[in-house]
Amino acid sequence: MNRQELISQIKEKRSFLCVGLDSDIKKLPAHLLGCEDPIFEFNKAIIDATAPYTVAYKPNLAFYEAGGVKGWISFEKTVNYIKENYPEIFIIADAKRGDIGNTSSLYARSFFEEMKVDSITVAPYMGEDSVKPFLAYEDSWVIVLALTSNPGSHDFQLTKDENGTMLFEKVLATSKNWGSDENMMYVVGATQGKSFENVRNIVPTHFLLVPGVGAQGGSLEEVCKYGMNDDCGLLVNASRAIIFADSSENFAAVAAEKAHDYQQQMENELKQRNII
Amino acid sequence: MNRQELISQIKEKRSFLCVGLDSDIKKLPAHLLGCEDPIFEFNKAIIDATAPYTVAYKPNLAFYEAGGVKGWISFEKTVNYIKENYPEIFIIADAKRGDIGNTSSLYARSFFEEMKVDSITVAPYMGEDSVKPFLAYEDSWVIVLALTSNPGSHDFQLTKDENGTMLFEKVLATSKNWGSDENMMYVVGATQGKSFENVRNIVPTHFLLVPGVGAQGGSLEEVCKYGMNDDCGLLVNASRAIIFADSSENFAAVAAEKAHDYQQQMENELKQRNII
Repeated sequence: MNRQELISQIKEKRSFLCVGLDSDIKKLPAHLLGCEDPIFEFNKAIIDATAPYTVAYKPNLAFYEAGGVKGWISFEKTVNYIKENYPEIFIIADAKRGDIGNTSSLYARSFFEEMKVDSITVAPYMGEDSVKPFLAYEDSWVIVLALTSNPGSHDFQLTKDENGTMLFEKVLATSKNWGSDENMMYVVGATQGKSFENVRNIVPTHFLLVPGVGAQGGSLEEVCKYGMNDDCGLLVNASRAIIFADSSENFAAVAAEKAHDYQQQMENELKQRNII
Repeated sequence: MNRQELISQIKEKRSFLCVGLDSDIKKLPAHLLGCEDPIFEFNKAIIDATAPYTVAYKPNLAFYEAGGVKGWISFEKTVNYIKENYPEIFIIADAKRGDIGNTSSLYARSFFEEMKVDSITVAPYMGEDSVKPFLAYEDSWVIVLALTSNPGSHDFQLTKDENGTMLFEKVLATSKNWGSDENMMYVVGATQGKSFENVRNIVPTHFLLVPGVGAQGGSLEEVCKYGMNDDCGLLVNASRAIIFADSSENFAAVAAEKAHDYQQQMENELKQRNII
């Protein structure tokens, strides 16, 4: 999916919601556990219920790998289900990969040729040759971790170098030259508040994938205030707050309500800035 | 496997060789491609041939994920084959994972409970809560990327902070307090030469996993000179230089020769330092 298609979808749906399919088998509604593939059945129901309010789905690979081979089957079925039924929705493999160039090429082949997702998250620690192989695929995106939403983001990402530049700023400034705003995005946690201003100083036009709204406590309003640009430029992710909002047989309908709530808030933010 | 068991194995085999099972399907000997599971057949032959000279195997997940579900089956079969036939050999899942705490716990469950490998490589960018969940398993190890072997290692890992400390040094100094030399190791590339001295100043007793000997051009002699400690403290990895040394039907015998060459050099290094 290219940038213009993504922006069009955001304007049509009046939403920039990404639903995180962190489908932990230990948290699924009990009545699904008898199915042959509980994770896929859960995802299918969540996807059908939330698709009208959602522009992106983000399965986090950890929750699939935890089931070994069976989990990978659930992951592939989920990706295929989205592509067949909601081809306009952007798919993010939240995998946080990154290895030496030779090996990153293999990951790129896996995610972009075999599974055909639209994008993958990548950790920047290993530098340019670990990221570049992901940029070789047309209409595919690499989403580089910049400033994450977790407490550990303070351990290294905020370290100032000799010029007073923080590591996440150096990651942004250096890596943005490896691609363009047509094939790179950045992860910036919703919990990082005013740091969005620093981010936007360095990458004004790139899309940002923003986790941390909902269960992790980030504020959508603040994210929009400091992070939104003229094309919206945000994909705001909520996972647990939507998919595990309810654990009864009614879980999908409740997830839809929660997604709809986010969409309404997002529509409001888009309108305020005359983007729609 | 605990530290003492690992050290004993090194002394018995007079080797600290780790063989990287980077079993790219596109590079396998042609005669194997007709098998039902070519990657597993290849690995089995490589393992049987090299086990006498090898203290660790390191399958890099990228080469398995590239095959999707089939690749994961090959990975699991490979791990199980090693555990059943060579239970004394240390298994490293080279996965370079790392996510927010909640999610890293899932990865830990996947690798240490489901697949029961001895260790996993983890990227440090996301900080403490991304690494700690891997430390909750007895006799399991987390191997944190410190100074990698690839050209991109220069992009961020060597960045000096306000005190003149390089990022990889800060990663070592900070993260060593999250565990101990009984459950943490560090990746330091063989191509990094004298930087091993800086590493050893900060983590004198930890084991180091050293990739980059062989195809990437690192020198074993130099690694030993600057990196070896009283317990050896090194696992030196070679991948392509061993497993793809020959592509004929004779590939496993040639791999054994290459592994034996390394073992001989390693025995020499261990003797010089009176470790054996």
